[in-house]
Amino acid sequence: MYAETRSESRKRLLEGDISICVVGLGRIGLPTATLFAEAGARVLGADINQDLVASLNSQKCQLTDEDGLPEMFSKVVAEGKLWATTHVSEAVSSADVIIICVPTPVDSAKVPDYSYVEAASHDIGKGLKPKSLVVVESTVGPGIVEDFIMPILEADSGLKAGLEFGLVSCPERADPGKIIQHMKEIPKIIGGIDPQSTEAAASLYENALGVKVVRVSDPKTANAIKLTENLFRDVNIALANEFAVLYERLGVDMIEVIKGCSTKYNFMPHYPGPGVGGPCLPSNPYYLIVESLKVGNIPHLIRLAREINDAMPDHVVDLISGALNDAGKTLKGSTISLLGLSYKPEVKDIQQSPMEKVLVELLRLGATVRSYDPMYKGEVVFGVKVEDTLQAAVEGSDCVVIGTLHKEFENLNLDAFVKTLNMPAAIVDTRNALDPGDVINHGFAYRGVGRPVGKWISSEADTKVGLVIDLDKRSKSRS
Amino acid sequence: MYAETRSESRKRLLEGDISICVVGLGRIGLPTATLFAEAGARVLGADINQDLVASLNSQKCQLTDEDGLPEMFSKVVAEGKLWATTHVSEAVSSADVIIICVPTPVDSAKVPDYSYVEAASHDIGKGLKPKSLVVVESTVGPGIVEDFIMPILEADSGLKAGLEFGLVSCPERADPGKIIQHMKEIPKIIGGIDPQSTEAAASLYENALGVKVVRVSDPKTANAIKLTENLFRDVNIALANEFAVLYERLGVDMIEVIKGCSTKYNFMPHYPGPGVGGPCLPSNPYYLIVESLKVGNIPHLIRLAREINDAMPDHVVDLISGALNDAGKTLKGSTISLLGLSYKPEVKDIQQSPMEKVLVELLRLGATVRSYDPMYKGEVVFGVKVEDTLQAAVEGSDCVVIGTLHKEFENLNLDAFVKTLNMPAAIVDTRNALDPGDVINHGFAYRGVGRPVGKWISSEADTKVGLVIDLDKRSKSRS
Repeated sequence: MYAETRSESRKRLLEGDISICVVGLGRIGLPTATLFAEAGARVLGADINQDLVASLNSQKCQLTDEDGLPEMFSKVVAEGKLWATTHVSEAVSSADVIIICVPTPVDSAKVPDYSYVEAASHDIGKGLKPKSLVVVESTVGPGIVEDFIMPILEADSGLKAGLEFGLVSCPERADPGKIIQHMKEIPKIIGGIDPQSTEAAASLYENALGVKVVRVSDPKTANAIKLTENLFRDVNIALANEFAVLYERLGVDMIEVIKGCSTKYNFMPHYPGPGVGGPCLPSNPYYLIVESLKVGNIPHLIRLAREINDAMPDHVVDLISGALNDAGKTLKGSTISLLGLSYKPEVKDIQQSPMEKVLVELLRLGATVRSYDPMYKGEVVFGVKVEDTLQAAVEGSDCVVIGTLHKEFENLNLDAFVKTLNMPAAIVDTRNALDPGDVINHGFAYRGVGRPVGKWISSEADTKVGLVIDLDKRSKSRS
Repeated sequence: MYAETRSESRKRLLEGDISICVVGLGRIGLPTATLFAEAGARVLGADINQDLVASLNSQKCQLTDEDGLPEMFSKVVAEGKLWATTHVSEAVSSADVIIICVPTPVDSAKVPDYSYVEAASHDIGKGLKPKSLVVVESTVGPGIVEDFIMPILEADSGLKAGLEFGLVSCPERADPGKIIQHMKEIPKIIGGIDPQSTEAAASLYENALGVKVVRVSDPKTANAIKLTENLFRDVNIALANEFAVLYERLGVDMIEVIKGCSTKYNFMPHYPGPGVGGPCLPSNPYYLIVESLKVGNIPHLIRLAREINDAMPDHVVDLISGALNDAGKTLKGSTISLLGLSYKPEVKDIQQSPMEKVLVELLRLGATVRSYDPMYKGEVVFGVKVEDTLQAAVEGSDCVVIGTLHKEFENLNLDAFVKTLNMPAAIVDTRNALDPGDVINHGFAYRGVGRPVGKWISSEADTKVGLVIDLDKRSKSRS
């Protein structure tokens, strides 16, 4: 595969003469394996998780929340184009292309954990055959492919990178829930350790997935691009959160502000919320921070953005406490219903979900917590059993918290809540799901991230709304 | 004007029966006055600067760098629709609408200076007649219109706001150089102290300028929107600068990174540079910071962004020192030519230009500084006389620094520089104006913000470029 021409690569793909080994069959690896199988390659998926491999080989797709994946997976497995194994080195030894899709998490002290990458590199090195191409889809810090993965591959294979095998970084840019669509539509950033590696990988992705390819100087540039675009999001969400907390105090509605700003050509809206979760945004900054520290540089802004986003669950607990206080209740002894546990809507993933911190803190403060999430019905999540229905979660509750805006929560019935909840009750909206005035008019105590309560309560004389009413009276008395 | 209907307002405008007083005739006020005059209003511009007023009344437009303004100004003045005066209260007393366009700078300790707003409010209050509408285009912190401007207007006029006169915040959103275009095209955010004020101002702007209007809850929301969109830019430029300085050390080219990131749908490119200048971005954050501190909130991210951007001129000096070092020279004793002094291209404005800090620091370190800027030929800027030509600025120089990318600097002739400069010489590019490889191939020592030198120097064995060359050799030996 390595150092083949573009047309050779295309010919082999069309003839089903390319074998690909995908190492790591999770959120990225399984769709990657499936897409390449669908494109005509023989794909062997390798994962150290025996249960997962057995499940896949019995044609069960784990990622039922990925649009279009289950159907595509069933098709390619039925056609015998994709199968799975726990024997990584063996699988590698028969592959033209090896794609690394293992997770790169951070540990509890926020230190990047490259142990999966390290183990995968050793397993691949042991099986690597000459002329093969190694593709790193896993997100790693700039320099990790060149300085960490490459030496392991070379040592364990006895082959020289850039001479006997190719190596590129091609970091995944797809969002959970839309992986299939994004892998075909979002251009792939490919940076190889040499031009032949880059070209080989570019040909493969262009031919197999029909995706545009952006060729960059080297693996570290590709990794810097991946991290920069994700950190852009993390920092901008932190900025939205900083504004939101401030505007709550200044009596300005952050949602109205975002709408207004969005009418300017050089503004991009980002929304405040309960924090940032998932496998990428809360971890990616630390991959860059650790490489920065190695060269004596402290990326203050990137680090501060993490601190701000990590502090949002505490702010949500403050909002819950404040709303309950308005309803004449204390956190201690109240029953609080968390709606939505996963880190984003319609995706079954609770990795680093801010709702975990909220839940743990509520329990610590003496509240009773019930939870409901349509993706986790009946399962135990964060130590609490998830109710089977929304109704069971909110019945007799003192406070409902919207933590994730799953579709089921998009049109909550506040009239029903009035009858079901233990009134006077509170509603805390971390996702801008409800109209604050509507919630307040239903008789609930209300808090929302970035949404100052006084804006919708006309009785508060010192708020702007009060002022408008005063002025209205004056205007009327004049006419 | 205040509490008139939309159609009444339109009718009066068409009949030339609206008189407007624009207070402050600078970068925002003069185009505002000119546009309303062109729309059919009788406009009286008021400014305390006698020279400016005399100049305008002799039909001389100060802002020759504003696209389309000089022609429009000449026309409305010739038609007798616009004239200027230093008597603010008198001008106000004959106006239906008063538009405040005075500057709101920060002092050297970064404290917002509302003295111009305060003085204008007193002058307006003294002349204010019933039923008039006061519009604040000046950028101020959330709450300043309600809690600072309104009480002054009421006390000095003896009239009640929201009853006897209207008051709105309608913060300008136009970029210097494109003020006329932006005032017509970028929607106006209008928040009044009561609905009648908002409607009166909305009618006026829609009818006169044909611009879209976004009606918001109150003045403080309008001001929050203005500050949020500008702070979004300041923070994102700070993030770009943080990445740039880091990537210089990691051997990654920031410009290549931005190009790569820009292929993702949820990324917005911002470019690193020598810092952030102008009347808005370096000041606006402090208007919000001071209001935040009043309510016990510290906006850490916004403040840190300012610190990062303010530190960039020092980084530029480091780059100059490094480039000269590569050329075998010290800063002390070298002649350094700064190309571009204004804070943005093609605009004659040096307010808070980062080039001032660069220049001062270079002088302090013992360099001889020459400067050239096509907007300031022959004038003394930052204590140094600006050369009349580019050639005069660079002849015999040891280092050329591109500080602002005026059109004249877009296609610099490096071949000519080789003959003119005191070789070995250095070129430092703070604006991504030149191709680094091209500069290096011409024999110059080179530095650029966010552009690691090793990327373009093949002789450095420990850089990536060196590695590529090694691998190329190996590949060739194999074939």
